[in-house]
Amino acid sequence: MTNPTAAMITIGDEILSGRTRDTNMPHLAAALTELGIDLRETRVVPDVAAEIIAAVNALRSRYDHVFTSGGIGPTHDDITADCIAAAFGVGIDVREDARAILATNYTNPEVDLNPARLRMARIPDGATLIENPISKAPGFSLGNVHVMAGVPSVFVAMLASVLPTLTGGRPLLSATVRFLVREGDIAGPLATVAAAHPDVSIGSYPFSRDGVHGSNVVLRSQDAEKLKQATRDVEALLATITPA
Amino acid sequence: MTNPTAAMITIGDEILSGRTRDTNMPHLAAALTELGIDLRETRVVPDVAAEIIAAVNALRSRYDHVFTSGGIGPTHDDITADCIAAAFGVGIDVREDARAILATNYTNPEVDLNPARLRMARIPDGATLIENPISKAPGFSLGNVHVMAGVPSVFVAMLASVLPTLTGGRPLLSATVRFLVREGDIAGPLATVAAAHPDVSIGSYPFSRDGVHGSNVVLRSQDAEKLKQATRDVEALLATITPA
Repeated sequence: MTNPTAAMITIGDEILSGRTRDTNMPHLAAALTELGIDLRETRVVPDVAAEIIAAVNALRSRYDHVFTSGGIGPTHDDITADCIAAAFGVGIDVREDARAILATNYTNPEVDLNPARLRMARIPDGATLIENPISKAPGFSLGNVHVMAGVPSVFVAMLASVLPTLTGGRPLLSATVRFLVREGDIAGPLATVAAAHPDVSIGSYPFSRDGVHGSNVVLRSQDAEKLKQATRDVEALLATITPA
Repeated sequence: MTNPTAAMITIGDEILSGRTRDTNMPHLAAALTELGIDLRETRVVPDVAAEIIAAVNALRSRYDHVFTSGGIGPTHDDITADCIAAAFGVGIDVREDARAILATNYTNPEVDLNPARLRMARIPDGATLIENPISKAPGFSLGNVHVMAGVPSVFVAMLASVLPTLTGGRPLLSATVRFLVREGDIAGPLATVAAAHPDVSIGSYPFSRDGVHGSNVVLRSQDAEKLKQATRDVEALLATITPA
């Protein structure tokens, strides 16, 4: 059984300018890993309609799920919902259930739900709303594309609303073996171990701290028994190493 | 005059699993913004040859520069150099100048430069080396693709070696105006200001801290005078707002 696959699209000039760090991507990555959905690719694209539409269409046909972050607020630069509608070739308009949910966030909705805010109730035809317990304005899922806010607290809350609706696979299990030698000293035998365990992904991540060189060898597999066997072999390799 | 454009490809399962955060991307983004090169797109792809090759070819034809991070060490999962050679359809082999540089990192190169480490001297035909003052093993530029290490300290050092060789444009200047009202309260007039200043990109980034809702309105332009005029208009809008 292979796991469902996923991609993420982060939408926002502020990430590409380096002004803001994308914390939603690592949050999604960790959550999907736990659920057994394989995150295969992520992209950051600017607030440009053609770029967003192209990325959505490229990824929704390739992966089981696409998660987007950003661009669903009330301001002029929030164009994600329209881009999703365009990508799917469907209409978009203010939807009454979304407007009603949005209204609960304001003490005086008749005044506060101005035209700008009503944009947040514009939902592509055929979409399902994603609950937003933080600031009410909903996200939505259309087909296999899940559209969420860029504000991290809201992204996290929306993802918590979506994930229980998805079918996960076998969680990716991992183990780490820490070597206190340079990775070039273990690369040869490590490649042999990796070749002997084709169902376990083995990565080497070197580090250097306070003059000490080392490498974290991370093993990943959906199969607990195979992970255990491969980890035993990497630990056996560790036992043969004498730090310089 | 339009600025040169760029894209980034981060290579590594450890980013997609959520285990490691990609700090190289925001570093590159900030450095390019300062240099006047527009970072237009970034992708994270797994340690899978077909994915790396496809991303390199998709982006190198679209942008003036492509920067890659990760996968150039000595272990079996370091496949970036081979993928770059395959993407360009050129050969790859150990290169003597790269081997000589690599040797300077070891006290006993005849023993220490084992087959695994020699992989780090494999350079695609026609590439120019990128200096690595940290751990010697060089990166390389082939055509418009700049191939650098994933270890953050080495990535930063390699980028510092590459950037002076690139032609920059006009740095993207920015200004921030902080509103202490919900962005839905300013979205209408802000859209009017944005429409009046087509050469200034205006983004609204909401925040909520300790019960206070607000938005940072960030203006960006290559033109200092136009940025000033637009900023003045946004500040005039600020003056009309009474926080709730």
